[in-house]
Amino acid sequence: MTDTALAFAAANRERFLAELKELLRIPSVSTLAEHNGDTRRAAEFVAKELRRIGMQHVELIETAGHPLVYADWLLAGGKPTVLCYAHYDVQPPDPLEEWLTPPFDPTERDGNLYCRGAVDDKGQLWMHMKALESLLVAGGGTLPVNVRVIFEGEEEVGGEGIAAFVQQHGERLKADVALISDTEMFAPGLPTLCTGLRGMIYTEVEARGARADLHSGMYGGVAPNPFIALAQVIGQMKDANGSILIPGIYDKVVPPSAEELHAWQSLPFDEERYRETEVGSRQLTGEPGLSVLQRTWARPALDVHGMPGGFTGAGAKTVIPAKATAKLSIRLAPGMECAETFALLEKFVQTHTPPGVEMSVRMIHSGEPVLIGTDNRYIRAAIEALDAVFERETVFIRSGGSIPIVGDFARYMGLPSVMMGFGLPDDNLHAPNEKFHIANFYSGTESIIRWLALLGGETA
Amino acid sequence: MTDTALAFAAANRERFLAELKELLRIPSVSTLAEHNGDTRRAAEFVAKELRRIGMQHVELIETAGHPLVYADWLLAGGKPTVLCYAHYDVQPPDPLEEWLTPPFDPTERDGNLYCRGAVDDKGQLWMHMKALESLLVAGGGTLPVNVRVIFEGEEEVGGEGIAAFVQQHGERLKADVALISDTEMFAPGLPTLCTGLRGMIYTEVEARGARADLHSGMYGGVAPNPFIALAQVIGQMKDANGSILIPGIYDKVVPPSAEELHAWQSLPFDEERYRETEVGSRQLTGEPGLSVLQRTWARPALDVHGMPGGFTGAGAKTVIPAKATAKLSIRLAPGMECAETFALLEKFVQTHTPPGVEMSVRMIHSGEPVLIGTDNRYIRAAIEALDAVFERETVFIRSGGSIPIVGDFARYMGLPSVMMGFGLPDDNLHAPNEKFHIANFYSGTESIIRWLALLGGETA
Repeated sequence: MTDTALAFAAANRERFLAELKELLRIPSVSTLAEHNGDTRRAAEFVAKELRRIGMQHVELIETAGHPLVYADWLLAGGKPTVLCYAHYDVQPPDPLEEWLTPPFDPTERDGNLYCRGAVDDKGQLWMHMKALESLLVAGGGTLPVNVRVIFEGEEEVGGEGIAAFVQQHGERLKADVALISDTEMFAPGLPTLCTGLRGMIYTEVEARGARADLHSGMYGGVAPNPFIALAQVIGQMKDANGSILIPGIYDKVVPPSAEELHAWQSLPFDEERYRETEVGSRQLTGEPGLSVLQRTWARPALDVHGMPGGFTGAGAKTVIPAKATAKLSIRLAPGMECAETFALLEKFVQTHTPPGVEMSVRMIHSGEPVLIGTDNRYIRAAIEALDAVFERETVFIRSGGSIPIVGDFARYMGLPSVMMGFGLPDDNLHAPNEKFHIANFYSGTESIIRWLALLGGETA
Repeated sequence: MTDTALAFAAANRERFLAELKELLRIPSVSTLAEHNGDTRRAAEFVAKELRRIGMQHVELIETAGHPLVYADWLLAGGKPTVLCYAHYDVQPPDPLEEWLTPPFDPTERDGNLYCRGAVDDKGQLWMHMKALESLLVAGGGTLPVNVRVIFEGEEEVGGEGIAAFVQQHGERLKADVALISDTEMFAPGLPTLCTGLRGMIYTEVEARGARADLHSGMYGGVAPNPFIALAQVIGQMKDANGSILIPGIYDKVVPPSAEELHAWQSLPFDEERYRETEVGSRQLTGEPGLSVLQRTWARPALDVHGMPGGFTGAGAKTVIPAKATAKLSIRLAPGMECAETFALLEKFVQTHTPPGVEMSVRMIHSGEPVLIGTDNRYIRAAIEALDAVFERETVFIRSGGSIPIVGDFARYMGLPSVMMGFGLPDDNLHAPNEKFHIANFYSGTESIIRWLALLGGETA
């Protein structure tokens, strides 16, 4: 059955890609209310395809935000149950002017497919869909294992809907293992499994000074300036190197094991090349004495994403704004907890607020960090599947990013996860010109076919 | 002739106000390119009215930006020549949602006229127009003095056009005194002349980190964050009180004379009431030990007006932006110079730029501070005119704001200025719900009629 499914997938590559492009054209930007209709349209597009390929009990599950897409096929008696997770929502496309082609017009260039959501995560969601389709066709409408599908539309805004659903109706997703395809390969051609994720608190720090906007000529020198107050508070949150100065922030971090650190050191990684080609800044920042991988995978990070308020148009407006806001997030290393981290941040802000200004910190969304075990049959099967496709030894990495639901699967359902993703480090996630390497779309689909077949008892 | 002119002005108040509303409806926002057409329309509106009332040589003088409006009447042989200055451009109206009525829909409430530009400066420009009309009607087409009119459309964006014109063609504005109506009265009913203005440098401080926007999960902890870099630099520019920490910034400030400080102390000013009603912040900021008037009139001030860049929409986007900008101005106290102040700012920014980030400071516009003499016949005539209208002793104040051209009139033309303005402290300049007290529009017009007549040799 595996060979038949692989042959079907190989024969239908062009169609698979054309369908993905259709999905990508739907601008399902979950954070922007004006795209709410598009986000639902993407969910409906996926649900319709799940029905077409022969999955059962396909349904949109409503949440307080964007709907979940659910489906299952549970007739493989005695076989394990796999929960396939991905997300159909995408990040906002701005800054628009930096896209070489329009963000929602999927375009092929040099073996890549450029579009917002190409790799994060619609392209990887579509691998799940096409692996299931290939196996269902090969099996005459049957699958080698039991499968539940849960796709969310709020991953980019914190995943509250799926988190609430898992807590309240976890039994409806009951499974033996979750397959998460929302991560990347460490390098082109290098099969990769992800074993850890950072968590995140995403906040808005608001500073309020005068009651209303004031003229900076008349009031400059006596009216508090909320932007300067934010600068004074935020400027003290890190030292010049980039170490975080919020007291207690590093206390709970669980350091990676010596074995894990050793494995990371043998990964093919050239820091100078990374600085030059991926980051492109004059130098990197961060805690001295720690490697790039350790800083991004196993240490917290604090970033400001934007500072709305005041006058941001071209030219000059001499206003002392009444208020200013900083969109500020902290990535949590394994060991840290969201509520505790938020409390440390809030205390720091209150302690450092300068006279004349009032500040508040508001949580926008959060997700706990995750470390997953690797000593189980699901990981072993994943290694076997990847080996068959890539013919290279699989590496274990972590990701600095956050997929909030993975922690919830473990916490509330006791569910192990396999994070098998096929992005590449230069895929421009969350940035202009996001892409998916088209060959990875195919080899990812093939890997998932093989993995599901292996779990069903077939050989790779 | 004075009485006839005053009677004409009194009889035509309603028409004067209706005309002003027409001018206010033109959104001549000089800093926004999309309003370039409106700004020109405002200039044409004013020029047309100058022709109608009988001024001569009316013309739009083109500049690199918005046109100057020129007119004259120079047939009063042997009499002094007055140069009337005001500006027809206005500040942007945002934040729009805080206006009680639309910003370009002039609305009367409680004896005030609400509209962007009502007091700054179209309402005061229209006082000049209506004073000239009243005198021309009373004089049968003649004026008691020679008059030149120069109205600019770039005051809110630094006034480069008029500055260049004064430097290159100063002789075309040759006069004995300039009348500037773009300032305010210290309190309702208290006749006021302004003797000093702060200067300003308005800059953009840009920080650049990574080559492109990056995902804060993948790169948080190694990629420099330009907002945090700006916070680190700007946060160090002031201490918690609000004293500026840029080395040398206070060195050239000329302190007010003991006499002037004494006069300021006797002005009717209640700091606590000012804090509560005008500023509305929990406390005021600024250099300890100096009064509010000294801090706003005779000391520099540093403000941030907005910080464009990154993600400023609702919700969350986890981006490390490639660049971020701070719109930052410094108000210059008399004694300071723009070029020198800019150099101090730039040096501070370069000295404090954290590793991994590059910063640059760009001058958007600038204007030198001004101190004017009060011991001359023009000021004495102004006091006499104001006394006749308000029946109270005139006070001398300064303004914390900037009118760049006043310094240029003195520097390049040796021209003394009379800054006779009729705004009020709560007029919401540069802020939502800008207003002009309608009674001041009338008493201002009357004061100007009397002043021009006095300079022509009539009695008040």
